[in-house]
Amino acid sequence: MAYSGDPILVEELLYRPVHSLIDQSLHAKLGGFTTNGDGVGIGWYGDRAEPAVYKSTHPAWNDRDLREIASQIRTPLLFAHIRASSGTPVQRSNCHPFRHGRWLWMHNGSLAEFGTLKRDLVMAVDPALYPQIEGSTDTETLFFLALTFGLEDDPPTAVARAVALVEEVGHRHGVAYPVHMTVATTDGESIWVFRYSSEGETSSLYYSTDVAQVRQLHPELEALQQLGPDTRFVVSEPLRELPGAWHEVPDGSWGLVHRDKGEIHPFQPLVRV
Amino acid sequence: MAYSGDPILVEELLYRPVHSLIDQSLHAKLGGFTTNGDGVGIGWYGDRAEPAVYKSTHPAWNDRDLREIASQIRTPLLFAHIRASSGTPVQRSNCHPFRHGRWLWMHNGSLAEFGTLKRDLVMAVDPALYPQIEGSTDTETLFFLALTFGLEDDPPTAVARAVALVEEVGHRHGVAYPVHMTVATTDGESIWVFRYSSEGETSSLYYSTDVAQVRQLHPELEALQQLGPDTRFVVSEPLRELPGAWHEVPDGSWGLVHRDKGEIHPFQPLVRV
Amino acid sequence: MAYSGDPILVEELLYRPVHSLIDQSLHAKLGGFTTNGDGVGIGWYGDRAEPAVYKSTHPAWNDRDLREIASQIRTPLLFAHIRASSGTPVQRSNCHPFRHGRWLWMHNGSLAEFGTLKRDLVMAVDPALYPQIEGSTDTETLFFLALTFGLEDDPPTAVARAVALVEEVGHRHGVAYPVHMTVATTDGESIWVFRYSSEGETSSLYYSTDVAQVRQLHPELEALQQLGPDTRFVVSEPLRELPGAWHEVPDGSWGLVHRDKGEIHPFQPLVRV
Amino acid sequence: MAYSGDPILVEELLYRPVHSLIDQSLHAKLGGFTTNGDGVGIGWYGDRAEPAVYKSTHPAWNDRDLREIASQIRTPLLFAHIRASSGTPVQRSNCHPFRHGRWLWMHNGSLAEFGTLKRDLVMAVDPALYPQIEGSTDTETLFFLALTFGLEDDPPTAVARAVALVEEVGHRHGVAYPVHMTVATTDGESIWVFRYSSEGETSSLYYSTDVAQVRQLHPELEALQQLGPDTRFVVSEPLRELPGAWHEVPDGSWGLVHRDKGEIHPFQPLVRV
Repeated sequence: MAYSGDPILVEELLYRPVHSLIDQSLHAKLGGFTTNGDGVGIGWYGDRAEPAVYKSTHPAWNDRDLREIASQIRTPLLFAHIRASSGTPVQRSNCHPFRHGRWLWMHNGSLAEFGTLKRDLVMAVDPALYPQIEGSTDTETLFFLALTFGLEDDPPTAVARAVALVEEVGHRHGVAYPVHMTVATTDGESIWVFRYSSEGETSSLYYSTDVAQVRQLHPELEALQQLGPDTRFVVSEPLRELPGAWHEVPDGSWGLVHRDKGEIHPFQPLVRV
Repeated sequence: MAYSGDPILVEELLYRPVHSLIDQSLHAKLGGFTTNGDGVGIGWYGDRAEPAVYKSTHPAWNDRDLREIASQIRTPLLFAHIRASSGTPVQRSNCHPFRHGRWLWMHNGSLAEFGTLKRDLVMAVDPALYPQIEGSTDTETLFFLALTFGLEDDPPTAVARAVALVEEVGHRHGVAYPVHMTVATTDGESIWVFRYSSEGETSSLYYSTDVAQVRQLHPELEALQQLGPDTRFVVSEPLRELPGAWHEVPDGSWGLVHRDKGEIHPFQPLVRV
Repeated sequence: MAYSGDPILVEELLYRPVHSLIDQSLHAKLGGFTTNGDGVGIGWYGDRAEPAVYKSTHPAWNDRDLREIASQIRTPLLFAHIRASSGTPVQRSNCHPFRHGRWLWMHNGSLAEFGTLKRDLVMAVDPALYPQIEGSTDTETLFFLALTFGLEDDPPTAVARAVALVEEVGHRHGVAYPVHMTVATTDGESIWVFRYSSEGETSSLYYSTDVAQVRQLHPELEALQQLGPDTRFVVSEPLRELPGAWHEVPDGSWGLVHRDKGEIHPFQPLVRV
Repeated sequence: MAYSGDPILVEELLYRPVHSLIDQSLHAKLGGFTTNGDGVGIGWYGDRAEPAVYKSTHPAWNDRDLREIASQIRTPLLFAHIRASSGTPVQRSNCHPFRHGRWLWMHNGSLAEFGTLKRDLVMAVDPALYPQIEGSTDTETLFFLALTFGLEDDPPTAVARAVALVEEVGHRHGVAYPVHMTVATTDGESIWVFRYSSEGETSSLYYSTDVAQVRQLHPELEALQQLGPDTRFVVSEPLRELPGAWHEVPDGSWGLVHRDKGEIHPFQPLVRV
């Protein structure tokens, strides 16, 4: 889940909505896994340009410290993620969101047969960036490929090039559909989201547009009553069912969320010539 | 899950059966909770009279060390438990099985409104035993009440008296149905099981009788092929569906498993006069 | 360590001073233990009356999330504690500071032969408060005894009565010197500290008075340059050696820190008649 | 610490000797770090060719499960390690000993400026082995380089070549003294140890020869009384001071421990021509 808008208490976002992210860690309805109990992480922006992250290997639903921190942190931009490991170890350095400078990155999905592709992918990461890779996930590798291809200057192009590389390496190793990706990334001001998979059947991704509609959704969120029209949510699963309030990010597209701006564009891998 | 019989590799019991305990931690079908990810624990007997225990607060499905240990430990008697907390903190001292001397104790269920009853219950524990209570669960308290009432000499009577006390204290505090209990306890030689609740709708509990039938159930468990007729399982949920091979422990009864002996008796709380 | 004054970034307090609390977790010079690696905890006040707490069982020096949170939290009052267990389990519910409503409580020291005294002490806790005891430490029990005796209304008297009770119970059980205590407690506005032991040889406790002197101590703490004269530290060990800037809280006394007020008074147990 | 000999209860090795490995985690006298509280790990051989490993990120001295397991595991060969991180995250996948097939590997020391050298070193690992690297330590990288150079066939040569490569890469990046190494590795039958550093001032490494002498050292270890002449210890720090019983592995040498065989040879990096 990603939130952008007026500063809001993290607790309001994680614990209040009917089908909150904490609930989703127990009973995700739409994901490939029914339990996302392999870790939780949040990233948020405060006084500094660089965000802070809190990550834990314990399931979100029983993490006391997450609840404590959420009750005290007010932020205009939050990334929250619950993890179901696709094979790599459950450890803090493998929890999302990943951070680099001002940027956060999180991912729902996987790179197929990552073990086979990993060496070639990691070698394509800028050698100056390589030492900063801390964990062993496909997500972090994809992040660093995007950084290598200029994420900080032009996110859509960078991600398109990174995905093209993964598909190229994948095909070279006989993997038919290497990429399954819903990604959210941010520099603290704007949020870019991507929904694409090689096979064309990607995990769900939704965004909200009109906060007035979200307020109708969540009368119990008193805090939202004071929020302005800039409030935006991007979620893997809707926080509550309400026809019309949640718009699907179409498969094979990318989106930009910034203040009053909300754009969707087609996305396709950018193959090197 | 409890196992008694010829020494067997713990890995065979935890990871091999189709609906293994590890799977149950993800998708328990019959329990009140669909995910039991608040900890895991095993107790086993080796060279000594006192058993060893391994407990972890991480969900069973991602605990690497549990897998490692299971691959190396061979034991004639194993207790294994996956936890779904009914409110008390997730910490190692609140994981089952609990141990006292040669005895192990684990529990599926809860004592209603335990916070309200706790002080009176804990005060009824033998003052000499009281300092040994390490955690904060209702299960551990019930264990120490049973120990107070002579578990080490006459388990059925001790448990009957403990349950009677909980119901008495519960009623005194206006709790209609204080006890919901399926308990397994052992001294390393025999296993006693109890299935009882104040309301009469207790969580499931099954036992196996004829190992020949269990072998039919689990052709993939090669280790079982060498086992003799003493093999017994007691489980919350059947390891695999096979009509006739799993017998339900009737609600309101206790059972004894010892070598070739398997008995079921009615159980009711033993009120003090 | 306790801090009171203008809002300050927690990171400045925990990680900057030469002999910071994080360093002390590795190399405490004056304490009975040379390594305090059995857990860390902080409590801080923000928008609400009730403080938030972050606690971890990992040693302070390698806890990444503590660093992250510290970089983002600004607070006018901070309690920070590193733990060396005197026997009870290392678990989050046994880390300091303990919280009750608006109050925080932390402790350096121990109650002798606590296992022997525990039952009698716990029984003296107000039954209405008893269910809120989460862990198994002597510190938490002492806190709840103080709450029972009116900590929220008159802290010095409440602590004096609690200590008297512990000594009485201790003597009854043949323990000569039951109490070894340096305690800090706060309601978010004032901080009370206590330094007392039955034997008269209590762990160290220091306070700072004049912030101008502390600024001379810590030129590297730029943040302190902006702080007003209300800044107060209470520490187990001086953050840096500078004769005259750290005043010892005399053994057998209690102190009050509130804005510009700083008082020391004699402390002795208040025996019931 | 490494042990080889008749099967012994792990508890006897870890918790009994006066300056046991558990004590060393608190107060290492000879190491560069005074506290080794960033994790603990043991590897041991049982029924299978492949060893099992138990690893934890908690300090050795407060790890309850380690104590439990140690009380039940009997093994003829044990590797035990306590970690002081040289910068990489504290996580289970970064704890020693590392395992590959039948082999275990542990290391005291570091590769200087590892972040700078890492990419080149990792690229020299056999691509077929590369996906098996789980963590981010210099130790694991060195292990996989040794495996790449034929550790399983000729350990001394493999390690010599791996060290030569690290020095070459190091010098290329302007690192004067890239290697500081005391390594122990085993296939379950023999133990090879290496003590070498680029600068010539390596951490300590000792071995025992005559078990009769070790028995004189440790009268309190009753279990040792039954052990035969094959008992061998290799330790970073002597388990107890006793002149003559502990022999230093000279700096710049490698040793082989196998049953009644104990050899020391000079070690130097094997540069590719």
